[in-house]
Amino acid sequence: MNNYPSILLSEAVDQFASLPGVGRKTALRLVLHLLRQSDKEVEVFAGALTRLKQEVKYCRVCHTISDQEVCPICQSHSRDKHTICVVENVQDVMSIENTGQYNGLYHVLGGIISPMDGVGPSDIEIDSLVARIEKEDIHEVILALPTTMEGDTTNFYIYRRLQNTTLHHSTQLLNDTTPLKISQIARGVAIGNELEYTDEITLGRSIVNRIEFKM
Amino acid sequence: MNNYPSILLSEAVDQFASLPGVGRKTALRLVLHLLRQSDKEVEVFAGALTRLKQEVKYCRVCHTISDQEVCPICQSHSRDKHTICVVENVQDVMSIENTGQYNGLYHVLGGIISPMDGVGPSDIEIDSLVARIEKEDIHEVILALPTTMEGDTTNFYIYRRLQNTTLHHSTQLLNDTTPLKISQIARGVAIGNELEYTDEITLGRSIVNRIEFKM
Repeated sequence: MNNYPSILLSEAVDQFASLPGVGRKTALRLVLHLLRQSDKEVEVFAGALTRLKQEVKYCRVCHTISDQEVCPICQSHSRDKHTICVVENVQDVMSIENTGQYNGLYHVLGGIISPMDGVGPSDIEIDSLVARIEKEDIHEVILALPTTMEGDTTNFYIYRRLQNTTLHHSTQLLNDTTPLKISQIARGVAIGNELEYTDEITLGRSIVNRIEFKM
Repeated sequence: MNNYPSILLSEAVDQFASLPGVGRKTALRLVLHLLRQSDKEVEVFAGALTRLKQEVKYCRVCHTISDQEVCPICQSHSRDKHTICVVENVQDVMSIENTGQYNGLYHVLGGIISPMDGVGPSDIEIDSLVARIEKEDIHEVILALPTTMEGDTTNFYIYRRLQNTTLHHSTQLLNDTTPLKISQIARGVAIGNELEYTDEITLGRSIVNRIEFKM
Protein backbone atom coordinates (compact mmCIF):
# COMPACT_ATOMS: atom_id res chain seq x y z
CA MET A 1 0.00 0.00 0.00
CA ASN A 2 2.37 2.75 -1.06
CA ASN A 3 1.13 4.17 -4.34
CA TYR A 4 -1.68 6.43 -3.20
CA PRO A 5 -3.63 8.05 -6.02
CA SER A 6 -3.48 11.46 -4.30
CA ILE A 7 -0.81 13.38 -2.40
CA LEU A 8 -3.43 14.84 -0.07
CA LEU A 9 -4.58 11.33 0.74
CA SER A 10 -1.06 10.15 1.25
CA GLU A 11 -0.30 13.05 3.60
CA ALA A 12 -3.38 12.39 5.73
CA VAL A 13 -2.50 8.68 5.88
CA ASP A 14 1.05 9.58 6.95
CA GLN A 15 -0.34 11.62 9.81
CA PHE A 16 -2.63 8.88 11.09
CA ALA A 17 0.06 6.24 10.63
CA SER A 18 2.35 8.30 12.88
CA LEU A 19 0.01 7.58 15.82
CA PRO A 20 1.01 4.72 18.12
CA GLY A 21 -0.50 1.37 17.13
CA VAL A 22 -1.90 2.65 13.85
CA GLY A 23 -0.51 0.97 10.75
CA ARG A 24 -0.79 2.28 7.19
CA LYS A 25 -3.79 0.09 6.34
CA THR A 26 -5.72 1.24 9.40
CA ALA A 27 -4.67 4.84 8.72
CA LEU A 28 -6.06 4.58 5.19
CA ARG A 29 -9.33 3.15 6.50
CA LEU A 30 -9.67 6.00 8.99
CA VAL A 31 -8.86 8.64 6.40
CA LEU A 32 -11.37 7.23 3.92
CA HIS A 33 -13.95 7.15 6.69
CA LEU A 34 -13.32 10.85 7.35
CA LEU A 35 -13.58 11.55 3.61
CA ARG A 36 -17.11 10.15 3.68
CA GLN A 37 -18.09 12.56 6.47
CA SER A 38 -19.34 16.09 5.83
CA ASP A 39 -16.94 19.05 5.56
CA LYS A 40 -18.34 20.32 8.85
CA GLU A 41 -17.58 17.08 10.70
CA VAL A 42 -14.00 16.93 9.47
CA GLU A 43 -13.55 20.57 10.46
CA VAL A 44 -14.83 19.79 13.96
CA PHE A 45 -12.38 16.87 14.15
CA ALA A 46 -9.40 18.95 13.06
CA GLY A 47 -10.53 21.84 15.26
CA ALA A 48 -10.79 19.67 18.36
CA LEU A 49 -7.16 18.62 17.92
CA THR A 50 -5.85 22.13 17.33
CA ARG A 51 -7.81 23.60 20.23
CA LEU A 52 -6.80 20.79 22.55
CA LYS A 53 -3.14 21.36 21.85
CA GLN A 54 -3.32 25.15 22.01
CA GLU A 55 -5.67 25.60 24.94
CA VAL A 56 -5.17 22.65 27.25
CA LYS A 57 -3.61 23.45 30.62
CA TYR A 58 -1.84 21.36 33.20
CA CYS A 59 -2.81 21.82 36.85
CA ARG A 60 0.06 23.75 38.42
CA VAL A 61 -0.26 21.73 41.64
CA CYS A 62 -0.59 18.12 40.51
CA HIS A 63 0.26 18.46 36.76
CA THR A 64 -2.79 16.60 35.50
CA ILE A 65 -4.58 17.87 32.37
CA SER A 66 -7.14 20.49 33.23
CA ASP A 67 -9.16 23.33 31.74
CA GLN A 68 -8.24 25.55 34.68
CA GLU A 69 -5.01 26.65 36.34
CA VAL A 70 -5.75 24.31 39.25
CA CYS A 71 -7.66 21.10 38.54
CA PRO A 72 -11.04 20.27 40.17
CA ILE A 73 -9.46 17.52 42.29
CA CYS A 74 -6.89 19.89 43.82
CA GLN A 75 -9.62 22.52 44.32
CA SER A 76 -12.18 20.15 45.83
CA HIS A 77 -13.07 20.61 49.49
CA SER A 78 -14.39 17.09 49.88
CA ARG A 79 -11.11 15.33 49.14
CA ASP A 80 -8.55 14.12 51.66
CA LYS A 81 -5.80 16.76 51.51
CA HIS A 82 -3.37 14.63 53.52
CA THR A 83 -2.80 11.89 50.94
CA ILE A 84 -1.00 12.17 47.62
CA CYS A 85 -1.11 9.38 45.07
CA VAL A 86 1.91 9.53 42.75
CA VAL A 87 1.20 8.31 39.21
CA GLU A 88 3.04 8.21 35.91
CA ASN A 89 0.51 9.97 33.70
CA VAL A 90 -2.96 11.42 33.25
CA GLN A 91 -4.52 8.11 32.20
CA ASP A 92 -3.54 6.68 35.58
CA VAL A 93 -5.42 9.48 37.36
CA MET A 94 -8.51 8.64 35.33
CA SER A 95 -8.12 4.91 35.95
CA ILE A 96 -7.82 5.38 39.72
CA GLU A 97 -10.72 7.87 39.75
CA ASN A 98 -12.83 5.30 37.95
CA THR A 99 -12.26 2.73 40.70
CA GLY A 100 -14.06 5.05 43.15
CA GLN A 101 -11.72 3.75 45.87
CA TYR A 102 -9.53 6.81 46.35
CA ASN A 103 -10.43 10.21 47.69
CA GLY A 104 -7.04 11.91 48.09
CA LEU A 105 -4.93 14.11 45.87
CA TYR A 106 -2.69 13.16 42.94
CA HIS A 107 0.72 14.02 41.63
CA VAL A 108 1.40 13.27 37.96
CA LEU A 109 5.10 12.68 37.30
CA GLY A 110 4.71 12.88 33.53
CA GLY A 111 6.96 9.86 33.06
CA ILE A 112 9.13 7.49 35.06
CA ILE A 113 12.87 7.21 35.47
CA SER A 114 14.20 5.22 32.54
CA PRO A 115 17.94 5.44 31.82
CA MET A 116 17.38 3.43 28.63
CA ASP A 117 15.17 6.21 27.25
CA GLY A 118 17.33 8.96 28.72
CA VAL A 119 14.70 9.96 31.31
CA GLY A 120 16.32 10.98 34.58
CA PRO A 121 14.83 12.20 37.89
CA SER A 122 15.10 15.83 36.81
CA ASP A 123 13.04 15.20 33.66
CA ILE A 124 9.92 14.31 35.62
CA GLU A 125 7.97 16.11 38.34
CA ILE A 126 9.83 14.74 41.37
CA ASP A 127 11.20 18.06 42.62
CA SER A 128 7.71 19.55 42.62
CA LEU A 129 6.44 16.48 44.50
CA VAL A 130 9.08 17.00 47.19
CA ALA A 131 8.21 20.70 47.30
CA ARG A 132 4.52 19.88 47.78
CA ILE A 133 5.28 17.50 50.64
CA GLU A 134 7.47 20.13 52.30
CA LYS A 135 4.73 22.76 51.93
CA GLU A 136 1.41 20.94 52.26
CA ASP A 137 0.27 18.89 55.24
CA ILE A 138 0.73 15.45 53.72
CA HIS A 139 0.50 12.33 55.90
CA GLU A 140 0.80 9.64 53.25
CA VAL A 141 2.33 9.25 49.81
CA ILE A 142 0.99 6.32 47.79
CA LEU A 143 3.31 5.27 44.98
CA ALA A 144 1.08 3.97 42.17
CA LEU A 145 3.68 3.52 39.43
CA PRO A 146 3.90 0.69 36.89
CA THR A 147 5.11 -2.62 38.31
CA THR A 148 8.10 -2.63 35.96
CA MET A 149 11.83 -2.20 36.44
CA GLU A 150 11.47 1.52 35.66
CA GLY A 151 8.53 1.84 38.02
CA ASP A 152 10.51 0.16 40.79
CA THR A 153 13.51 2.43 40.16
CA THR A 154 11.29 5.49 40.36
CA ASN A 155 9.57 4.17 43.50
CA PHE A 156 12.95 3.67 45.15
CA TYR A 157 14.27 7.07 44.08
CA ILE A 158 11.18 8.88 45.38
CA TYR A 159 11.31 6.86 48.61
CA ARG A 160 14.91 7.96 49.21
CA ARG A 161 14.17 11.57 48.39
CA LEU A 162 11.13 11.66 50.66
CA GLN A 163 12.93 9.96 53.53
CA ASN A 164 15.43 12.83 53.64
CA THR A 165 12.72 15.43 53.15
CA THR A 166 10.63 14.05 55.97
CA LEU A 167 13.49 14.11 58.47
CA HIS A 168 14.13 17.73 57.58
CA HIS A 169 10.40 18.42 57.78
CA SER A 170 10.03 16.78 61.21
CA THR A 171 12.93 18.68 62.75
CA GLN A 172 11.51 21.96 61.51
CA LEU A 173 8.07 21.44 62.99
CA LEU A 174 8.66 19.95 66.42
CA ASN A 175 4.97 19.58 67.15
CA ASP A 176 4.47 17.47 64.02
CA THR A 177 4.38 13.97 65.46
CA THR A 178 2.90 12.07 62.47
CA PRO A 179 5.75 10.71 60.34
CA LEU A 180 5.21 10.66 56.59
CA LYS A 181 3.90 7.27 55.54
CA ILE A 182 5.12 6.04 52.15
CA SER A 183 3.23 3.12 50.64
CA GLN A 184 3.01 1.43 47.28
CA ILE A 185 0.02 -0.19 45.60
CA ALA A 186 -0.46 -3.91 46.27
CA ARG A 187 0.99 -6.29 43.74
CA GLY A 188 -0.22 -9.84 43.34
CA VAL A 189 -2.57 -12.11 41.51
CA ALA A 190 -5.24 -10.01 39.74
CA ILE A 191 -8.81 -10.42 41.02
CA GLY A 192 -10.63 -13.11 39.06
CA ASN A 193 -7.43 -14.71 37.75
CA GLU A 194 -6.65 -18.41 37.95
CA LEU A 195 -3.30 -19.17 39.62
CA GLU A 196 -2.58 -21.55 36.73
CA TYR A 197 -2.44 -18.67 34.26
CA THR A 198 -0.64 -16.17 36.47
CA ASP A 199 3.00 -15.58 35.56
CA GLU A 200 5.62 -17.09 37.84
CA ILE A 201 7.12 -13.82 39.07
CA THR A 202 3.76 -12.41 40.14
CA LEU A 203 2.71 -15.66 41.77
CA GLY A 204 6.08 -16.05 43.50
CA ARG A 205 5.97 -12.52 44.89
CA SER A 206 2.37 -12.91 45.98
CA ILE A 207 3.49 -15.82 48.18
CA VAL A 208 6.52 -13.99 49.58
CA ASN A 209 4.44 -10.87 50.25
CA ARG A 210 1.43 -12.77 51.62
CA ILE A 211 -0.80 -10.92 54.06
CA GLU A 212 -2.51 -12.23 57.14
CA PHE A 213 -6.02 -13.55 56.58
CA LYS A 214 -8.63 -11.69 58.62
CA MET A 215 -12.31 -12.49 59.07
CA MET B 1 -13.27 6.06 31.40
CA ASN B 2 -15.85 8.79 31.38
CA ASN B 3 -14.76 11.48 33.81
CA TYR B 4 -12.15 13.31 31.80
CA PRO B 5 -10.34 16.06 33.67
CA SER B 6 -10.73 18.47 30.74
CA ILE B 7 -13.52 19.26 28.30
CA LEU B 8 -10.99 19.87 25.51
CA LEU B 9 -9.55 16.42 26.14
CA SER B 10 -12.99 14.86 26.21
CA GLU B 11 -13.92 16.53 22.91
CA ALA B 12 -10.77 15.31 21.17
CA VAL B 13 -11.35 11.79 22.53
CA ASP B 14 -14.95 11.91 21.25
CA GLN B 15 -13.68 12.75 17.78
CA PHE B 16 -11.17 9.90 17.68
CA ALA B 17 -13.66 7.48 19.20
CA SER B 18 -16.06 8.28 16.33
CA LEU B 19 -13.63 6.64 13.90
CA PRO B 20 -14.37 3.03 12.93
CA GLY B 21 -12.64 0.48 15.15
CA VAL B 22 -11.37 3.06 17.62
CA GLY B 23 -12.70 2.67 21.17
CA ARG B 24 -12.54 5.29 23.90
CA LYS B 25 -9.41 3.85 25.50
CA THR B 26 -7.52 3.84 22.21
CA ALA B 27 -8.86 7.32 21.42
CA LEU B 28 -7.50 8.60 24.73
CA ARG B 29 -4.12 7.01 24.04
CA LEU B 30 -3.96 8.65 20.61
CA VAL B 31 -5.01 12.05 21.96
CA LEU B 32 -2.44 11.93 24.76
CA HIS B 33 0.18 10.94 22.19
CA LEU B 34 -0.72 14.02 20.13
CA LEU B 35 -0.56 16.16 23.27
CA ARG B 36 3.04 15.11 23.71
CA GLN B 37 3.89 16.28 20.19
CA SER B 38 4.86 19.85 19.34
CA ASP B 39 2.24 22.48 18.45
CA LYS B 40 3.59 22.44 14.90
CA GLU B 41 3.11 18.68 14.51
CA VAL B 42 -0.48 18.77 15.74
CA GLU B 43 -1.18 21.67 13.41
CA VAL B 44 0.20 19.65 10.49
CA PHE B 45 -2.01 16.72 11.52
CA ALA B 46 -5.16 18.85 11.73
CA GLY B 47 -4.22 20.71 8.54
CA ALA B 48 -3.75 17.49 6.57
CA LEU B 49 -7.30 16.43 7.44
CA THR B 50 -8.87 19.78 6.60
CA ARG B 51 -6.98 20.12 3.34
CA LEU B 52 -7.74 16.54 2.33
CA LYS B 53 -11.45 17.06 2.83
CA GLN B 54 -11.55 20.46 1.16
CA GLU B 55 -9.20 19.90 -1.75
CA VAL B 56 -9.43 16.24 -2.68
CA LYS B 57 -10.99 15.50 -6.07
CA TYR B 58 -12.53 12.43 -7.57
CA CYS B 59 -11.53 11.47 -11.10
CA ARG B 60 -14.52 12.38 -13.27
CA VAL B 61 -13.97 9.29 -15.43
CA CYS B 62 -13.38 6.45 -12.97
CA HIS B 63 -14.33 8.19 -9.65
CA THR B 64 -11.16 7.23 -7.80
CA ILE B 65 -9.55 9.77 -5.47
CA SER B 66 -7.20 12.04 -7.34
CA ASP B 67 -5.44 15.38 -7.13
CA GLN B 68 -6.47 16.17 -10.70
CA GLU B 69 -9.75 16.24 -12.59
CA VAL B 70 -8.76 13.02 -14.35
CA CYS B 71 -6.61 10.55 -12.42
CA PRO B 72 -3.15 9.42 -13.62
CA ILE B 73 -4.45 5.93 -14.47
CA CYS B 74 -7.16 7.27 -16.79
CA GLN B 75 -4.65 9.71 -18.31
CA SER B 76 -1.88 7.16 -18.79
CA HIS B 77 -0.94 6.19 -22.36
CA SER B 78 0.67 2.92 -21.33
CA ARG B 79 -2.48 1.36 -19.91
CA ASP B 80 -4.87 -0.95 -21.71
CA LYS B 81 -7.84 1.29 -22.60
CA HIS B 82 -10.05 -1.65 -23.58
CA THR B 83 -10.46 -3.18 -20.12
CA ILE B 84 -12.33 -1.76 -17.13
CA CYS B 85 -12.06 -3.31 -13.69
CA VAL B 86 -15.12 -2.49 -11.58
CA VAL B 87 -14.39 -2.15 -7.86
CA GLU B 88 -16.29 -1.08 -4.78
CA ASN B 89 -13.96 1.61 -3.47
CA VAL B 90 -10.63 3.41 -3.68
CA GLN B 91 -8.83 0.92 -1.43
CA ASP B 92 -9.61 -1.80 -3.95
CA VAL B 93 -7.93 0.21 -6.72
CA MET B 94 -4.83 0.50 -4.56
CA SER B 95 -4.90 -3.20 -3.64
CA ILE B 96 -5.15 -4.28 -7.27
CA GLU B 97 -2.48 -1.77 -8.34
CA ASN B 98 -0.20 -3.23 -5.69
CA THR B 99 -0.48 -6.70 -7.19
CA GLY B 100 1.18 -5.41 -10.39
CA GLN B 101 -1.01 -7.88 -12.34
CA TYR B 102 -3.42 -5.46 -13.96
CA ASN B 103 -2.77 -2.81 -16.56
CA GLY B 104 -6.26 -1.69 -17.56
CA LEU B 105 -8.61 1.04 -16.35
CA TYR B 106 -10.82 1.13 -13.26
CA HIS B 107 -14.32 2.15 -12.35
CA VAL B 108 -15.03 2.86 -8.68
CA LEU B 109 -18.67 2.29 -7.79
CA GLY B 110 -18.38 4.00 -4.43
CA GLY B 111 -20.37 1.22 -2.77
CA ILE B 112 -22.31 -1.92 -3.63
CA ILE B 113 -26.01 -2.65 -3.85
CA SER B 114 -27.24 -3.42 -0.36
CA PRO B 115 -31.00 -3.26 0.25
CA MET B 116 -30.36 -3.77 3.99
CA ASP B 117 -28.39 -0.50 4.10
CA GLY B 118 -30.74 1.26 1.70
CA VAL B 119 -28.16 1.36 -1.10
CA GLY B 120 -29.78 0.87 -4.51
CA PRO B 121 -28.30 0.79 -8.02
CA SER B 122 -28.89 4.54 -8.47
CA ASP B 123 -26.85 5.37 -5.35
CA ILE B 124 -23.64 4.03 -6.84
CA GLU B 125 -21.78 4.78 -10.07
CA ILE B 126 -23.47 2.18 -12.27
CA ASP B 127 -25.08 4.60 -14.73
CA SER B 128 -21.72 6.25 -15.36
CA LEU B 129 -20.17 2.79 -15.88
CA VAL B 130 -22.79 1.98 -18.51
CA ALA B 131 -22.22 5.40 -20.11
CA ARG B 132 -18.46 4.76 -20.25
CA ILE B 133 -18.97 1.41 -21.93
CA GLU B 134 -21.33 2.98 -24.46
CA LYS B 135 -18.84 5.74 -25.21
CA GLU B 136 -15.35 4.22 -24.85
CA ASP B 137 -13.97 1.28 -26.80
CA ILE B 138 -14.21 -1.30 -24.00
CA HIS B 139 -13.66 -5.00 -24.79
CA GLU B 140 -13.80 -6.43 -21.28
CA VAL B 141 -15.37 -5.58 -17.95
CA ILE B 142 -13.82 -7.34 -14.95
CA LEU B 143 -16.11 -7.39 -11.93
CA ALA B 144 -13.84 -7.27 -8.86
CA LEU B 145 -16.45 -6.82 -6.14
CA PRO B 146 -16.52 -8.42 -2.69
CA THR B 147 -17.41 -12.12 -2.66
CA THR B 148 -20.44 -11.46 -0.47
CA MET B 149 -24.18 -11.56 -1.04
CA GLU B 150 -24.15 -7.81 -1.78
CA GLY B 151 -21.20 -8.19 -4.13
CA ASP B 152 -22.97 -11.01 -5.96
CA THR B 153 -26.15 -8.92 -6.26
CA THR B 154 -24.19 -6.01 -7.67
CA ASN B 155 -22.32 -8.32 -10.06
CA PHE B 156 -25.59 -9.71 -11.32
CA TYR B 157 -27.20 -6.28 -11.67
CA ILE B 158 -24.25 -4.90 -13.64
CA TYR B 159 -24.16 -8.03 -15.79
CA ARG B 160 -27.82 -7.58 -16.72
CA ARG B 161 -27.40 -3.86 -17.41
CA LEU B 162 -24.33 -4.43 -19.57
CA GLN B 163 -25.92 -7.27 -21.50
CA ASN B 164 -28.64 -4.87 -22.68
CA THR B 165 -26.16 -2.09 -23.29
CA THR B 166 -23.90 -4.27 -25.35
CA LEU B 167 -26.67 -5.42 -27.64
CA HIS B 168 -27.62 -1.80 -28.26
CA HIS B 169 -23.96 -0.99 -28.79
CA SER B 170 -23.42 -3.79 -31.27
CA THR B 171 -26.43 -2.91 -33.41
CA GLN B 172 -25.35 0.71 -33.60
CA LEU B 173 -21.85 -0.08 -34.80
CA LEU B 174 -22.29 -2.83 -37.32
CA ASN B 175 -18.56 -3.15 -37.91
CA ASP B 176 -17.94 -3.80 -34.20
CA THR B 177 -17.45 -7.54 -34.12
CA THR B 178 -15.92 -7.96 -30.66
CA PRO B 179 -18.70 -8.64 -28.16
CA LEU B 180 -18.24 -7.17 -24.68
CA LYS B 181 -16.65 -9.75 -22.40
CA ILE B 182 -17.85 -9.67 -18.79
CA SER B 183 -15.75 -11.58 -16.27
CA GLN B 184 -15.44 -11.78 -12.53
CA ILE B 185 -12.37 -12.36 -10.37
CA ALA B 186 -11.58 -16.00 -9.54
CA ARG B 187 -12.86 -17.29 -6.23
CA GLY B 188 -11.37 -20.26 -4.50
CA VAL B 189 -8.83 -21.42 -1.96
CA ALA B 190 -6.39 -18.59 -1.20
CA ILE B 191 -2.79 -19.17 -2.26
CA GLY B 192 -0.79 -20.69 0.59
CA ASN B 193 -3.87 -21.92 2.47
CA GLU B 194 -4.33 -25.46 3.76
CA LEU B 195 -7.57 -27.08 2.57
CA GLU B 196 -8.16 -28.18 6.15
CA TYR B 197 -8.57 -24.57 7.30
CA THR B 198 -10.53 -23.31 4.29
CA ASP B 199 -14.21 -22.69 4.97
CA GLU B 200 -16.66 -25.20 3.52
CA ILE B 201 -18.40 -22.84 1.13
CA THR B 202 -15.16 -21.67 -0.49
CA LEU B 203 -13.81 -25.22 -0.70
CA GLY B 204 -17.12 -26.52 -2.09
CA ARG B 205 -17.26 -23.84 -4.76
CA SER B 206 -13.62 -24.31 -5.66
CA ILE B 207 -14.43 -27.94 -6.51
CA VAL B 208 -17.58 -27.08 -8.47
CA ASN B 209 -15.74 -24.30 -10.36
CA ARG B 210 -12.56 -26.32 -10.89
CA ILE B 211 -10.45 -25.42 -13.91
CA GLU B 212 -8.57 -27.69 -16.24
CA PHE B 213 -4.98 -28.39 -15.23
CA LYS B 214 -2.50 -27.30 -17.90
CA MET B 215 1.25 -27.88 -18.08
